[in-house]
Amino acid sequence: MKQIQVGLIGFGTVGSGLAETLFEQKERLQKKVGAEIVLSQVADTSRKTLPKHFSGITLTKDANDIFTNPDIDIVVELIGGLEPARSFLLEAIKHGKHVVTANKALLSIHGKEIFEAAVANNVEVGFEASVGGGIPVIKSLKEGLVANRINSIMGIMNGTANYILTKMTDHGVPFAEVLKDAQELGFAEADPTYDVEGIDTAHKLAILMTIAYGTYVHLDNINTEGISDIEPVDIEFAREFGCRIKLLAISHHHGDHVEARVHPTMVPTSHMLANINGAYNAIHFNGDTVGNVLFYGLGAGKMPTGSAVAADVVDIGRNILCSSVNRVPALSYLPENIGTPKITPMSKLTCPYYFRITALDHPGVLETIAGIFNKHGISIKSVIQKSRHQFDPVSIVLLSHTANEEAVQNSIEEINALDVCTKKTVKIRILSDKE
Amino acid sequence: MKQIQVGLIGFGTVGSGLAETLFEQKERLQKKVGAEIVLSQVADTSRKTLPKHFSGITLTKDANDIFTNPDIDIVVELIGGLEPARSFLLEAIKHGKHVVTANKALLSIHGKEIFEAAVANNVEVGFEASVGGGIPVIKSLKEGLVANRINSIMGIMNGTANYILTKMTDHGVPFAEVLKDAQELGFAEADPTYDVEGIDTAHKLAILMTIAYGTYVHLDNINTEGISDIEPVDIEFAREFGCRIKLLAISHHHGDHVEARVHPTMVPTSHMLANINGAYNAIHFNGDTVGNVLFYGLGAGKMPTGSAVAADVVDIGRNILCSSVNRVPALSYLPENIGTPKITPMSKLTCPYYFRITALDHPGVLETIAGIFNKHGISIKSVIQKSRHQFDPVSIVLLSHTANEEAVQNSIEEINALDVCTKKTVKIRILSDKE
Repeated sequence: MKQIQVGLIGFGTVGSGLAETLFEQKERLQKKVGAEIVLSQVADTSRKTLPKHFSGITLTKDANDIFTNPDIDIVVELIGGLEPARSFLLEAIKHGKHVVTANKALLSIHGKEIFEAAVANNVEVGFEASVGGGIPVIKSLKEGLVANRINSIMGIMNGTANYILTKMTDHGVPFAEVLKDAQELGFAEADPTYDVEGIDTAHKLAILMTIAYGTYVHLDNINTEGISDIEPVDIEFAREFGCRIKLLAISHHHGDHVEARVHPTMVPTSHMLANINGAYNAIHFNGDTVGNVLFYGLGAGKMPTGSAVAADVVDIGRNILCSSVNRVPALSYLPENIGTPKITPMSKLTCPYYFRITALDHPGVLETIAGIFNKHGISIKSVIQKSRHQFDPVSIVLLSHTANEEAVQNSIEEINALDVCTKKTVKIRILSDKE
Repeated sequence: MKQIQVGLIGFGTVGSGLAETLFEQKERLQKKVGAEIVLSQVADTSRKTLPKHFSGITLTKDANDIFTNPDIDIVVELIGGLEPARSFLLEAIKHGKHVVTANKALLSIHGKEIFEAAVANNVEVGFEASVGGGIPVIKSLKEGLVANRINSIMGIMNGTANYILTKMTDHGVPFAEVLKDAQELGFAEADPTYDVEGIDTAHKLAILMTIAYGTYVHLDNINTEGISDIEPVDIEFAREFGCRIKLLAISHHHGDHVEARVHPTMVPTSHMLANINGAYNAIHFNGDTVGNVLFYGLGAGKMPTGSAVAADVVDIGRNILCSSVNRVPALSYLPENIGTPKITPMSKLTCPYYFRITALDHPGVLETIAGIFNKHGISIKSVIQKSRHQFDPVSIVLLSHTANEEAVQNSIEEINALDVCTKKTVKIRILSDKE
């Protein structure tokens, strides 16, 4: 039986997940592919041995041993981070190896360099696991939705942030407390910045936009805000308005420019994305032919990620067996058709907004605030005013009709400068019915 | 630029959807595939002309003209039904044409014959549009989830039935009334039998099981019940129990046997499938590597189906261009590895149940009923008894713990035979928490 040989760099959680997957699915994959997919070499700087059932795998500390191994067809990089991951991938490509990676940070920053090197060396780059963990979203976008202009991408792409927001929603507990619990349970990392500040979500949106639109989108193109300022009171108000707060990646294609943003968003409960709970991810596309589609599953974890990486390995393996390398372009569009995006400035964004203003309960406050919004052309749809104790500041909550981001920023600045305002105004964007 | 030429049989709603898709996406597909995908010939017995923008397409009444046209690479069958669709596909295959079809009825009955003919003639069969309309669920199952043992398939796979159940749930209107409205609005066909009696859903489940498990599953293997007996009162009770009623396709893989059933099901609102509304479809898999994944979108319609058929055409076109025909086996497993399924008899099924018993409000009735269930080993979890008017029969609603289908059938027979029972007992299976 023919063999496809795989070399793996990084035997951590995800790396061992790939090894387990290829081990457990060995027979099944043979029955589907007609060839053996063999993990034959692992490079890991800290491992002295591999688990017993992997006794057939050669272990090395030096990734170069894999690049120079003539038997290796595909190199899988699962160490994460920018360096040495970037150098390893480029080196593998230079040696004519196909590469597979789950490294979203790397691809959203150095993707152009890596994809161009792969084209120059006529090798493949598999990166299904970089977005949505085990969900086959990248293959679906590239192949299943091939006959579509993608009008929008919206998604919950970080399980940790979604887990935290779900717990806050279900139990009314503050962010810091849920985060601490999540860290103790292993659902959040010791340094949760990438997850809760939206950076990891931005990495993934950049990758999806690149494929969907045929333009190299860089992490720097994405406007990113996290969830660490969300308070239980905002979640409670959201509920009163028939919404849930989710950390969404959002991109709308406007023809000559594209939106690219990650921020907490109020999502009407009737929308599929409002009902994605816990550590699950979901990615929603609108295509001009297919309409709305959504892909749901676990966005991280040892085995789900192993499932996606193994799918890439099989896909490339089939191309090796059929001599059909780069049968589908890595980025969906042929390399010569990939352009540069024009990103909509955030100041031009329009959507409905939620505002929570904290002010002293003086006569005329609401009138003053309404006047400021009115001056900036922001039309208010509804107002709730709640005071807890006499003399305490009140929460004035307003929902706007579709408004312009720049006008919103200017209004908030003026409102925050009022003597009666005792705290910074909270603003949350709302997913409009049309989305 | 290279060309892939397509011949289309059937220029009805879906056929014209494919034509529109290939026309509108022409430039985009060129930028992705590096070749022109051209619809060059259409066979339709009732069409005299094609719309103006399709002036380049040859129109014929005789499908044979397409089979014998040496320029045609791929034949797309979109006439539906068993004959002449079956003969057309077999004839096209015999002529060495690759084929694409959306015909789920045909594949769930004559699939084995068609797939074996394709293997014998070394051509491809594309059938993405046969399940889930525009949702790329078949490609995802075959390729994205390749490294998984599929433990279960559950889905809402008929938009008409789901639209009717959604309307009944939202407005408390009886089945017949919603159906009539749906027919007037074009959401249901004049003869809605296939949709509302679960047959169309069974077609699709047979196809998914065939791919997921590597066994030829026939329509006759699927135990099928429809939604025409569901009453608003059951939907109301479901709501009280935190559930919604959905027409589900369900298959669990038990190792040496597999469940295969389609029936109305009470789905806890916390489950993703409870939140799929209107004409949307969703298909949920549990895989041993990936865990739970779900695919959501429009399961029917001219353009969504066009999107899926076009994706198949592109996929096969790429294999023609790369000389990699049958790079991925049509049924996921290689032909020599496809077996025969052993279907779990319905009598062996176990799940929780909902019962609505209509009985005269006599003393001791509940005791009698509880005694019958107890005798058959069915343990009751909760009971609601509601009477509307004095002397009228009451509805006694019971939820069971996990029970056996055969014991349930026997209990219901005994209960229906009681003098106090004035109507046939309604039984609805409940999706258990583990699913």
